Amino acid sequence: MNDPRALARQLDAGDPLAGFRTEFVLADDLIYLDGNSLGRLPRATATRLVEAVEQEWGTGLIRSWTQWIELSAQIGDELGAAALGAGRGQVLICDSTTVNLYKLLSAALAHQRDADSQRRVILTDDDNFPTDRFVAAGLAAHGQAVVRLLHTDPDLGVRAGDIENALAPGDVAVLSLSHVAYRSGALADLPRITELAHAHGALALWDLAHSVGSVPVDLDAAGVDLAVGCTYKYLNAGPGAPGFLYVRGDLIDRLDPPIWGWFGQRDQFAMAADHDPAPGITRFAAGTPPVLGLHAVRQGVALIAAAGIGALATKGRELTSYAAALSEEWLAPLGFRLASPESSTDRGAHLTLHHQRAWQICQAAISVDVVADYRTPDRLRVGPAPIYTRFIDVHDGLARIRDLVVAGEHLRFPEEVGAVT
Amino acid sequence: MNDPRALARQLDAGDPLAGFRTEFVLADDLIYLDGNSLGRLPRATATRLVEAVEQEWGTGLIRSWTQWIELSAQIGDELGAAALGAGRGQVLICDSTTVNLYKLLSAALAHQRDADSQRRVILTDDDNFPTDRFVAAGLAAHGQAVVRLLHTDPDLGVRAGDIENALAPGDVAVLSLSHVAYRSGALADLPRITELAHAHGALALWDLAHSVGSVPVDLDAAGVDLAVGCTYKYLNAGPGAPGFLYVRGDLIDRLDPPIWGWFGQRDQFAMAADHDPAPGITRFAAGTPPVLGLHAVRQGVALIAAAGIGALATKGRELTSYAAALSEEWLAPLGFRLASPESSTDRGAHLTLHHQRAWQICQAAISVDVVADYRTPDRLRVGPAPIYTRFIDVHDGLARIRDLVVAGEHLRFPEEVGAVT
Repeated sequence: MNDPRALARQLDAGDPLAGFRTEFVLADDLIYLDGNSLGRLPRATATRLVEAVEQEWGTGLIRSWTQWIELSAQIGDELGAAALGAGRGQVLICDSTTVNLYKLLSAALAHQRDADSQRRVILTDDDNFPTDRFVAAGLAAHGQAVVRLLHTDPDLGVRAGDIENALAPGDVAVLSLSHVAYRSGALADLPRITELAHAHGALALWDLAHSVGSVPVDLDAAGVDLAVGCTYKYLNAGPGAPGFLYVRGDLIDRLDPPIWGWFGQRDQFAMAADHDPAPGITRFAAGTPPVLGLHAVRQGVALIAAAGIGALATKGRELTSYAAALSEEWLAPLGFRLASPESSTDRGAHLTLHHQRAWQICQAAISVDVVADYRTPDRLRVGPAPIYTRFIDVHDGLARIRDLVVAGEHLRFPEEVGAVT
Repeated sequence: MNDPRALARQLDAGDPLAGFRTEFVLADDLIYLDGNSLGRLPRATATRLVEAVEQEWGTGLIRSWTQWIELSAQIGDELGAAALGAGRGQVLICDSTTVNLYKLLSAALAHQRDADSQRRVILTDDDNFPTDRFVAAGLAAHGQAVVRLLHTDPDLGVRAGDIENALAPGDVAVLSLSHVAYRSGALADLPRITELAHAHGALALWDLAHSVGSVPVDLDAAGVDLAVGCTYKYLNAGPGAPGFLYVRGDLIDRLDPPIWGWFGQRDQFAMAADHDPAPGITRFAAGTPPVLGLHAVRQGVALIAAAGIGALATKGRELTSYAAALSEEWLAPLGFRLASPESSTDRGAHLTLHHQRAWQICQAAISVDVVADYRTPDRLRVGPAPIYTRFIDVHDGLARIRDLVVAGEHLRFPEEVGAVT
């Protein structure tokens, strides 16, 4: 690149999403390249939370339940339309991603077992996000499934061909994969892989945690059966905000969730003697919904809807391409090496680099106000969330990382891994 | 009573907890007798939430995880000390009460089944809170248990003698009961019933949703095995705030939760290949903790700790006794009848009245700024939470209810049940 800083300025000047940056609270001088881990605070969310706390809770008290009771499904519909390609009545905001994954996997396994007692395999890959692997392993440990773990190149992500081979025995109940890989950012071919699962009699469950809000997801069009995801990354709903789940419309009433709770009950406040699951997606609710978290999800989803998932994905690809080019020029000579697919169309909105001192570099970067994050064992992950990140942020962030590595500043930081990044 | 209003004034004047009222946001003119359903907003919580949103999330972003990561266990310890009689390391704030109940019941069933394959019964009662009955029924429907449902007089609560009979066959894996009954407010004899469970080889699980923060709970002293509860009632942590779970110290590492999540993993951020449960109570965590909700729980617990559970319970008994006396004098002639145990020592902090038009009366009361709530089929529930409710509130609230029933104003409200109360 001739003048990368001028290029960044030029790209920012032409960015149709540039106006969205001011919708977020921006910490002074901080270069934040970690939106794939925890998204920034939307200004509207700060305002809305205060209003919800003071008015709905403080003043409205129990009377506000008339507004709160439908939020999980209403905001689910809003998320479905904005970012999931999902028609109404198939998405619910509730619980954590982990608990939602458990509910859907367990219900899907039972459904498949009822049809064919030999179909007991959860097929997933050895680089899937830990909670996805652990939930599957837990179901297996408790006798509900057998786990088949596909080996995946952690820099390149899952490949349809490998999946097809692993599906071939015809014993897979559920294929459970991440749409965008948490380490490499590799984007799986969701439509094709879903089709393969169906061709082999398996249900397809996608974890959208690292894709929702950054790349288009067309669940209905692809015929996806089940999906879960998180709202505190590209949906900017705050630390520990509730997760979501999706169940394909015609499958909903045929699945029986493992956790029968009072919020999944038809005519809930009749306090009936017997469990009678609510019709529709609400049957996958369990306990009382986290109202403040739901409000935060709604604000985050509204911003994604306003920006448009197509524009966000385009900018995401441009940002990671720009980062990859800078990395090639500045960082490769310092021992960095790409840990993501080469083509931006094979990636979500984050880019990952190998470096044997990645942990120290990540800590040193924080000390100069550049926040990226670390992933085992030697990865520096750069997540320039498209809705609020400028090209100049990517430029300045990588320049500071380059400079600190050249100066050896990272060597002053301890080598051990352990803090939360 | 000679002059019930003067008596209320006198009781308020002598109330050692009177100062706590100003720690809460008070809606103008509202007489709130529903703290057993959703507690009021503490002023400190409103402030703390703004600070957490703006500073920890907005400015600190991902760096704040160093503070957030331990909150679930830290606040669990604070709750344990303030209101549960639980030593450190046994309480975790996480998920909803429903999900926590599922996790503990499922783990307890597996533990018992391993020791004796014939011990598969969950013993509970037919007036237990719906989600408690539904979770047990769901486990039974999925082949993990058999449910034995004890019939209980819904005005008087569970009786130790009946429970002893139902435990006698020796096949009960877990006895699952509510400490304070959600409809009647009946207070179960937790120490004695726990002892009975143990004498018959069963584990004792208590749902503390309607007791925590209003009556003393001495889990360690009573040798309770498992407990769950909710924080948005007497702990005043806000709508849908996370629940809690308790596991007796020496049992923790012998139980295997059904949901294996990344927040329950030892050395979580190593992102290891295999599930390796964290030592201690953290193994019962699943997904990412709801940080804002946790802050709200901490504030609510701090107020309960400052007030002291002994003083709260004493005032709770005095408030319901005063309400019962007014009810006897004013409301009994209008067709109301006590739906709670007669003695205040047999009750938690709420009092329930039968009236065939309870639904209409509840709606009419809201229209004159008195918030109580309705429970099926004919109950008006009055929950004067001791930390912020005055005797004069009970007086004025019941006087308004008396007056509207005398005037027949409730008859203008529709008879059907259905809205959320």
